[in-house]
Amino acid sequence: MPTSPEHAGRQARLAAALAARGLDAALVLHAVDVLWLTGTRQNAALWLPARGAPALLVRKSLARARAEAAVEDVRPFPPSRELAAALPAARVGVTLDAVPAATVAWWGKQLPGAALEDLSAEVRALRSVKSPAELEVMREGARRLGGVLREVPTFLRVGATELEVAAEVERRLRLAGHEGSPRLRAFNAELFGGLVVAGDAAAAPGFFDGPVVGQGLHAAYPLGASRRPIRAGEPVIVDYTVVCGGYVVDMTRTAACGPVAPEVRRALDASRRIQDAVAALLRPGTPCTAPWERALELAAEAGLADVFMGPPGDQARFVGHGVGLELDEWPVLAPGAKAALEAGQTVAVEPKFVLPGVGAVGVENTFVVTERGGERLGDLDDGLLQA
Amino acid sequence: MPTSPEHAGRQARLAAALAARGLDAALVLHAVDVLWLTGTRQNAALWLPARGAPALLVRKSLARARAEAAVEDVRPFPPSRELAAALPAARVGVTLDAVPAATVAWWGKQLPGAALEDLSAEVRALRSVKSPAELEVMREGARRLGGVLREVPTFLRVGATELEVAAEVERRLRLAGHEGSPRLRAFNAELFGGLVVAGDAAAAPGFFDGPVVGQGLHAAYPLGASRRPIRAGEPVIVDYTVVCGGYVVDMTRTAACGPVAPEVRRALDASRRIQDAVAALLRPGTPCTAPWERALELAAEAGLADVFMGPPGDQARFVGHGVGLELDEWPVLAPGAKAALEAGQTVAVEPKFVLPGVGAVGVENTFVVTERGGERLGDLDDGLLQA
Repeated sequence: MPTSPEHAGRQARLAAALAARGLDAALVLHAVDVLWLTGTRQNAALWLPARGAPALLVRKSLARARAEAAVEDVRPFPPSRELAAALPAARVGVTLDAVPAATVAWWGKQLPGAALEDLSAEVRALRSVKSPAELEVMREGARRLGGVLREVPTFLRVGATELEVAAEVERRLRLAGHEGSPRLRAFNAELFGGLVVAGDAAAAPGFFDGPVVGQGLHAAYPLGASRRPIRAGEPVIVDYTVVCGGYVVDMTRTAACGPVAPEVRRALDASRRIQDAVAALLRPGTPCTAPWERALELAAEAGLADVFMGPPGDQARFVGHGVGLELDEWPVLAPGAKAALEAGQTVAVEPKFVLPGVGAVGVENTFVVTERGGERLGDLDDGLLQA
Repeated sequence: MPTSPEHAGRQARLAAALAARGLDAALVLHAVDVLWLTGTRQNAALWLPARGAPALLVRKSLARARAEAAVEDVRPFPPSRELAAALPAARVGVTLDAVPAATVAWWGKQLPGAALEDLSAEVRALRSVKSPAELEVMREGARRLGGVLREVPTFLRVGATELEVAAEVERRLRLAGHEGSPRLRAFNAELFGGLVVAGDAAAAPGFFDGPVVGQGLHAAYPLGASRRPIRAGEPVIVDYTVVCGGYVVDMTRTAACGPVAPEVRRALDASRRIQDAVAALLRPGTPCTAPWERALELAAEAGLADVFMGPPGDQARFVGHGVGLELDEWPVLAPGAKAALEAGQTVAVEPKFVLPGVGAVGVENTFVVTERGGERLGDLDDGLLQA
């Protein structure tokens, strides 16, 4: 059991949120939430009372959980008949957004005296604010991802397929320590790692909630790179995530083989202006709608409102999303968002345009909300990756 | 709307299962189940009545769903106030194993007259039996995966890290058309693609429900390859999945740089004998416990019972698992399994040993259950991949 003020602090903040709602305990079942609270990602459930010491109930592996978890009481998962006595509570918080109905029903039977109430909003809000230690890990991720994207011009070439470019990005990311696919919280959401999408393939519609989806290799996995070859002068969107110490960083650059058309340059300039204007708004207290409104205003000024965040008629309605242990964290910079930004939140800002018949153009970086505006993670130039 | 007897057949089989249970309709929400029934994996819900025509309600992308789905009635997702009238039913089946509690609760509110009942078992049972068309896709996947594993001796070398070998396997798989991470149905289960685990790293315990887990790169992603260098003569487990047309094929070989110890050869021989004996039992009607019992018997005959399917004290209790659109399908060849095998089921058989201080040794192939015993997918030799 390693001691960790970092994890103790997270546990204390969640315990305070429980007390504020009158809940007796949290039953933390989603592995990523357990990881955030304890430092281990084993097959385990965390019982966190509003008052008192937490217990980690481990199905597998007990040895590894004991070595990693910042929890004093790490025990084998008890026989189910013992759970009600071991976990006494009348009102228990569970992240109902992320746990299957059958799993919640099973726990409901084991704890017949307890009401299981939704704790998703509290957990997502707490997780959205990163500590200095979390930000340090994300800075390292941004360095790794930026280092790989910087190399794209060395292997991007006319006639290579989107898939070939993707495979090379993914190989280099892996060698840089990329740990696996970015985790997504939303039901049915998935992303292998990122997207390489060239020219008019960027207008292909898809299920993914973003400005560019890509054809993918098959209807069964319909996003990202396809076998379409890259042509001279067309914009190629290279939008990738890295997972470093569990934390996701999200970054996009526009690449091209040979000179691009003036409209591509203009769109990229507009994308950079929007990003910088949004970044300046990433201060505590800014309503989450404000960066979206400012982005839309600048897209209109550039004469590109109808192609902002997607092809005409299929436009995504956000300009940034939280990232951390999951790719789809809070906050979301979008119309209708009710919250205001908090210091330490981390947001991927991704203004993109999909020019019909031409391709997608844009830039994306991950920023930290600070009193001085968004602090950008990574130092890769936002300009065209020119091969 | 492409016509597809294949998908019409699947829809009819599920409709019959609904009728048999007295359910009025299935509300299919898990994207992989929707894919299996319709051929599209967009953001959509399938309403499948026990009697009558199904409707696909699409959030995104309607255009792509219309182009891909083998469903006549593909419509935009209705406003929620219209759902109850559009989807009349008293008893509705939902796969509660795979759908978050909050999503089920939302649907419960939209359909106040309907009881939402668990349909997981019916869907999993139907999906476990593959059609000739599905098997053809899986044969192609096995060819691709076998082709990459065959090449491992060309890049495995002493001093290379597990991660470097993994990155090269993954690059070659991607170029062969690997579509993304294998999907897993179980809550909190995940796998980036596969495992490269060398020597005594194979004894590292972990959350993953398999004989070998690996250290991984970080406690946040604790499985698979680490930065441990590969040493001469030690067994290296190369256990990978490929995703081809959405279907997962799972395969393992043992590799080594230079000659291995006699105990490694003996364990690999035992693993092959167990695999072949299990394969011979993969006939319709065989109880799913029988291959497990036979495997255990042969492991004991080889004097390796205490290291079968994991290091002593941490042994997994199965010898095979269903694969298809998900990596963790039915059937499971394990003690306590109640079902009997059916023709057309596809099972990854993976007898492995973890020799303390030495490493993991084993073989894995994906088989189809047939009247003549298991038909193996792929033709890669089971012997040591000798570099």
